Amino acid sequence: MTDTVWMDTENDLLCCIDQRKLPNETTVLSLSKAEDIYFAIKTLAVRGAPAIGIAAAIGLYAVSARFHETESAGFFYALKKTADYLNAARPTAVNLSWALSRMVKTAERNIDKSVSEIKAALKAEALTIYSEDIAVCRKIGEYGVGLIKDGYRILTHCNAGALAAVRYGTALAPIYVAKEMGFTLHVFADETRPLLQGARLTAYELCANGIDTTLICDNMAASLMQKGQIDAVFVGCDRVALNGDAANKIGTLGVAVLAKTFGVPFYVCAPFSTVDFACPTGANIVIEQRAPEEVTELHYKQRMTHPKVKVYNPAFDVTPAEYITAFVTEKGILKPAELRNYKERHA
Amino acid sequence: MTDTVWMDTENDLLCCIDQRKLPNETTVLSLSKAEDIYFAIKTLAVRGAPAIGIAAAIGLYAVSARFHETESAGFFYALKKTADYLNAARPTAVNLSWALSRMVKTAERNIDKSVSEIKAALKAEALTIYSEDIAVCRKIGEYGVGLIKDGYRILTHCNAGALAAVRYGTALAPIYVAKEMGFTLHVFADETRPLLQGARLTAYELCANGIDTTLICDNMAASLMQKGQIDAVFVGCDRVALNGDAANKIGTLGVAVLAKTFGVPFYVCAPFSTVDFACPTGANIVIEQRAPEEVTELHYKQRMTHPKVKVYNPAFDVTPAEYITAFVTEKGILKPAELRNYKERHA
Repeated sequence: MTDTVWMDTENDLLCCIDQRKLPNETTVLSLSKAEDIYFAIKTLAVRGAPAIGIAAAIGLYAVSARFHETESAGFFYALKKTADYLNAARPTAVNLSWALSRMVKTAERNIDKSVSEIKAALKAEALTIYSEDIAVCRKIGEYGVGLIKDGYRILTHCNAGALAAVRYGTALAPIYVAKEMGFTLHVFADETRPLLQGARLTAYELCANGIDTTLICDNMAASLMQKGQIDAVFVGCDRVALNGDAANKIGTLGVAVLAKTFGVPFYVCAPFSTVDFACPTGANIVIEQRAPEEVTELHYKQRMTHPKVKVYNPAFDVTPAEYITAFVTEKGILKPAELRNYKERHA
Repeated sequence: MTDTVWMDTENDLLCCIDQRKLPNETTVLSLSKAEDIYFAIKTLAVRGAPAIGIAAAIGLYAVSARFHETESAGFFYALKKTADYLNAARPTAVNLSWALSRMVKTAERNIDKSVSEIKAALKAEALTIYSEDIAVCRKIGEYGVGLIKDGYRILTHCNAGALAAVRYGTALAPIYVAKEMGFTLHVFADETRPLLQGARLTAYELCANGIDTTLICDNMAASLMQKGQIDAVFVGCDRVALNGDAANKIGTLGVAVLAKTFGVPFYVCAPFSTVDFACPTGANIVIEQRAPEEVTELHYKQRMTHPKVKVYNPAFDVTPAEYITAFVTEKGILKPAELRNYKERHA
């Protein structure tokens, strides 16, 4: 399994697979300009809550490594401005601000040092965030596999796999660990309109890793659950509120309601960096609204509807805690109500 | 409002708008060969439960008008063979077999007459089926509008509009009547993957008729209902079982479950020709499985997923009666349990 996002440590570059071109073309972006990194996140060249955080951390380092400021005050000012700029690329996934905030705090801790020492500290922090993600996703996989039995038929929505993190992913991590353990699983992947992350990314990475996968349109999940053909749902998420409400890719709420109706367990896989302890409930989560053309034109750009039609195109929805059987985190499997026990340690 | 399907009475042809090319191109097919009519139904050039029935009736007449048989026995044999052939074009919508059976029974009633008299009887019957559909859809609209208040925000799935019948449609008929009455409505149209009937057809006909319409991806309906932005759901259907279970376009079941969860009334609009009194429950309805390429390739034909991925592509699902607030029919608004009261009169 190759990395989705990484640092070119020799040339101080943010590298990532350009996910806009998958599955038909595998190209790598090497970025060091703030505008390019902002655009890569905004247009989903790099996407998935954990991957966005890591890309932002490495990206912020790559930009700041090129700052000409020799005084730490000037360097810090430029760093903060760049972090704020990158943070505005997408509003919903908290990992973006979480990672940028870790980077800025690292600079703050070193503010009395030389600029080159601050740069070295930022490089180390970005690499730590990167390494931690691999370990954290692995842990999510190891805890999550305890919820899976050999032969399970698992439904997932959007892409919360290796392509949404550095490796393993969140929702797909338990599936990859199960595969290592010799389980035979079958995964149903929602195609995930409008941008087709399920068809383009999830089906691609699962098939490439030898996992038996069936692609469905988002509106077919109800039919499968009604027939008893889904044993569990695993999804990732973009921001978890203190009460356990979870924002994730648009359509997740619908899958959660169906799962509850048809008695299928619904698991949300996420690192603690996705929990926003300052956010009381899902109602406080800002939902990104994206361009109408994502809906009116297919991914490959042909207009398919009336010129006068309006479009509603939220990128995410909020699944209330009552629909979530459990969160799968790097610290174990938690009921939504247990999240607040971790507030003191993380806030 | 122009007709979707009609007879060229001078030349004995089945005419229909080619819905595969909408909304970008409006072309009319004129057909008289059984293979062409079968193919037009199979590939959804003409689609929608009522429209399929009418096309089959007019089509069967157009084919039989060209039979060279001079003896009524030979004519009847060829007619029956053609009806069986057309009936196999699609399995789920009962209107297809209902209309063909009406035509065959008309020939049977006239079997002792001359072939030209039988042909005349078939022509008259096809025109009756056509005219009845206009009247029936109008009635559905007039009854259904009683369920709508000025200012309502209505969700619909797939296309059960004018393009699914001769005129007015079923699910959209109440909306067109409401518009005539001066109501201001807002319609949310599910795009309806994989073939995008909502984006291509529903958004097209509603916008063309001056109705304020917002297009959404199928997976966005939950988000709207959660926010209280949908006042009622209106859908059509393809076959209703005696117990009130209703097969309709894939994804309808999911919308029905969401509507129940979020307290939104869910109305199924259908003529009595869609009720299969011989079918005890939804479990007995044959669900058409369609080609994987409808899912793996977008409507405009670009491959978008891994070559090894499997596909589940049912064209319909079954909504249990418990999720259906009421049926809107040409005889009024009925609870699912009331359907069986009509069995004697229709079976």
